[in-house]
Amino acid sequence: MSGERPFFELLHEDAGTRARAGIFHTAHGSVRTPVFMPVGTQATVKSQTCEDLRVLGTQILLSNTYHLYLRPGEEIVREAGGLHRFMDWQGPILTDSGGFQVFSLSDFVRLKPEGVEFKSHLNGSLHRLTPEDVVRLQTTFGSDILMPLDECVKYPATREEVGRSLVLTHDWAARSKKAWLQAVDRGDCRGRLFAIVQGGVYADLRRRSAEELVGLDLPGYAIGGLSVGEPNPAMYETLEATLPHLPRLKPRYLMGVGMPEDLFEAVGQGVDMFDCVVPTRSGRHGTVYTPDGKLILRNAWLSRDHRPIDEECDCYTCKHHTRAYLRHLFAAEEHLSGRLASLHNLAFFIKLLESMRKAILEDRFDVFRRDFLGRYRAGEAVRAGNASKTEKE
Amino acid sequence: MSGERPFFELLHEDAGTRARAGIFHTAHGSVRTPVFMPVGTQATVKSQTCEDLRVLGTQILLSNTYHLYLRPGEEIVREAGGLHRFMDWQGPILTDSGGFQVFSLSDFVRLKPEGVEFKSHLNGSLHRLTPEDVVRLQTTFGSDILMPLDECVKYPATREEVGRSLVLTHDWAARSKKAWLQAVDRGDCRGRLFAIVQGGVYADLRRRSAEELVGLDLPGYAIGGLSVGEPNPAMYETLEATLPHLPRLKPRYLMGVGMPEDLFEAVGQGVDMFDCVVPTRSGRHGTVYTPDGKLILRNAWLSRDHRPIDEECDCYTCKHHTRAYLRHLFAAEEHLSGRLASLHNLAFFIKLLESMRKAILEDRFDVFRRDFLGRYRAGEAVRAGNASKTEKE
Repeated sequence: MSGERPFFELLHEDAGTRARAGIFHTAHGSVRTPVFMPVGTQATVKSQTCEDLRVLGTQILLSNTYHLYLRPGEEIVREAGGLHRFMDWQGPILTDSGGFQVFSLSDFVRLKPEGVEFKSHLNGSLHRLTPEDVVRLQTTFGSDILMPLDECVKYPATREEVGRSLVLTHDWAARSKKAWLQAVDRGDCRGRLFAIVQGGVYADLRRRSAEELVGLDLPGYAIGGLSVGEPNPAMYETLEATLPHLPRLKPRYLMGVGMPEDLFEAVGQGVDMFDCVVPTRSGRHGTVYTPDGKLILRNAWLSRDHRPIDEECDCYTCKHHTRAYLRHLFAAEEHLSGRLASLHNLAFFIKLLESMRKAILEDRFDVFRRDFLGRYRAGEAVRAGNASKTEKE
Repeated sequence: MSGERPFFELLHEDAGTRARAGIFHTAHGSVRTPVFMPVGTQATVKSQTCEDLRVLGTQILLSNTYHLYLRPGEEIVREAGGLHRFMDWQGPILTDSGGFQVFSLSDFVRLKPEGVEFKSHLNGSLHRLTPEDVVRLQTTFGSDILMPLDECVKYPATREEVGRSLVLTHDWAARSKKAWLQAVDRGDCRGRLFAIVQGGVYADLRRRSAEELVGLDLPGYAIGGLSVGEPNPAMYETLEATLPHLPRLKPRYLMGVGMPEDLFEAVGQGVDMFDCVVPTRSGRHGTVYTPDGKLILRNAWLSRDHRPIDEECDCYTCKHHTRAYLRHLFAAEEHLSGRLASLHNLAFFIKLLESMRKAILEDRFDVFRRDFLGRYRAGEAVRAGNASKTEKE
C-alpha cells in the first residue's frame, strides 16, 4: 500500500562499523533497534511480572510456540483473547516457531516433507506440526512477529547433512509465507513473518540460505542455528558470511545470543535484534552482570559487602539492596534472590543495547565497544584474582 | 515521662463483642489494630519485595531472631545498620525471640536455668543463648517490638510439665525486662519488650502465667503456645481463659494465628495482633483465599476460567491476571506463580483485618463476622462439591 509507513526504518548507520540504529512498528507499539528481547518461554519471563518488565524499559518480549502449544494449548490462549491478554503484556511479542525446541527437547522426532512428528517432553504424547500449523498457532496467539518452522541440525553436522536440511527449511519457509499471507488476507493476522537463515558454520551454505530466503521477500530475517555449541570464532565468521547477503532495509535477528562480547560483535556486524535466557537463568543461579564483569552472589567474600551490585544501575535491586543482603537471600535459598538478581540482569542487558544504540546514533560505536569491553574484561580479571585469593585463605 | 504519647491507644471497643480497635506507635511508624503482620522469617517475606508489601498496605512485619542469629548473623546485620536497612523495610518490625524455633527446628536442645543450648538446624553447630543474649540480638537488629526467650512445651504436655516450664519462662521474662531496660537506658534500644503468656491448654496455668507476667508491667502481651496442634475449641477456650487477665490498655498479640475463622474468633475476644505464614506458604503451593473460600489454583477446572481470583480484590494479581493464567503458571512450575498467589493472599489477610477494624469502629463486628463467615463457608461447600464433581467426571 503506497504511503503506508514501512515496517522497518533504518535510521542511522555507524560511521566506523556496520552497526545500525533503526525502528520497527507493530500493532502493539514500536521497537527501537538494536534491541534485547527478554525471553518469556512459557508466557512468563521467569519470576518477573509484566509491570516489572515495563518499568525496566522492555520494548518487546519473546515467547515460544512449542511450549505454548503443549501447555496451556491453543484453545486456552484463544479463549483468553490471545497471548498478550493471557499473560497481560501490552507491548509487542515475537514467538519462536518451536523448530529449535522440537529438536532440542523432544526425545523422539521424525521429519517428513509435510512437517514434523515428535513426542512431548512433558508427557510423551505424540504430536504432528506442519509449517501451516505453526503459522496458525502464532496467528491465534496474536504474535507481532512470527517465525516459520525450520529444521535445526545438531552441531556439529557435516556439510551434506546441513545442505540436505536447507531444502526442507526453505520449502517450509515458502509454505509458511503462503499460510501467513492467507491469514493476513483473512484479517486474522496483524503480525509479520520473518525467515530463518540456516546453514551451520558453512559460509557457502549460509550464503545460499540467505539468498534463497531473501527471494521470498519477507519482512525480516533471522539467523538461526548459532550459539548451539560452536566456538565463538566460528559464530563470528558465520555472521560475517551471512549478514552481507541480507537486505539492508529489513531487521536482522540473531536468535539465542548472547553474552555481552557476542552482542557487541553482532551489533558491530549489523544485527538488530537479540534474545537470550542468560539474564534470568544466570540471575536465578546467583550470577549478575556489571560494567566490571560478572559477580557470583553466592561468594562468601560478598557477605559483608554493603554496596549495591552496581552503583551506577538504577534498577529496583540496585536502588534498594546490597550485595550482602542478596548473598544472604541466595544462602537462605529464598525465591526473592532469583527475582532480584534476574531483574538486575534484565536491566543490564536492556540498557546495554540502549547504550549501543545511542553510540551508533553518535557515530562512536567502536569507541563505546572498546571502552565497555576494556572495563568489563579488566573487572573479570580482578574478580578472578579475588576468587582465587579467597580460596587460598 | 509525663505528657508523652502512650505506646498503645485503645480507640474503641465494639458494642456487641470484646473486639477492640486501637493504635500503637513505634520509632518506624504507627500501627492500627487489629493488624495482620506478614512473616519475613529470614529478613524477607517469601517472594515479595518490601515495595510490594508497602503497596499492599502492610503496617508491620515479623522477623525471627533465631533464624537471623544463625544466618546472616548478628555482625552482618549490625554492619548493615540494623534489620530495617539490611532488608530495606522502613516500617515497624517485630522480632520473635526464637524460643519457638529452638524447640521446633533443632534436634538437640538442652535447657538450663541460665539459658538454652541447641544445635543449629542448618549445620549442627552448637549454640548457647540466654534471655539477655536474645534481647541484645533484637537490640542490634533495631526491632520495634522485642519478644523474650521462652520455653515452648510440646503439645500435648501434662499439667506438671507445663507448670514446671512456666517457672523458667517467667524467670526469663523478668531477666529479659532487666536487659531491655538497661539497653533503653544506654540509648541502644527504642523498641518495646512484650511478655509471652504460656500455660498450654490449662486454664488455671494460663491465668497464673498472665497474672505473673502482668506483674512485670511490660508494654504488650503475647499469647504463645497456641496453634501448635491443639483442636480449635481448645484454642478458643484457652483464649477465653487468658484474655480477661491481660491489661485492657496494652496490645495483645496471638502468635502464629491463623485461618480466617481463627482471626474472627480471636479479634472477637479482644486480640489486637496476628502473624501467620499461611498467606505465603499457601500461596506458594497454589491455594488462594477469597470471600467465597479457598481456591486450589492447580485444579484442572480452573484452566479455562478467565476471571480473576477475586473480582472484588484490587491487588496486582487480581487486577492483571486470570485464574487460567495462574493455573498455567502453577502447572508450568514457574516461580511467578507463588509470587502472584502469595501477593493476593497477603492482600486478603491484610484487608480482612482492616475490614474487621472498620466494623469494630462502627459497632458492627458481629454482623460483619456473621456475613463474612456465612459467605466464606458457603463458598467452601460449593467448591468442595465442584471438586468432587470434577473427580467423578
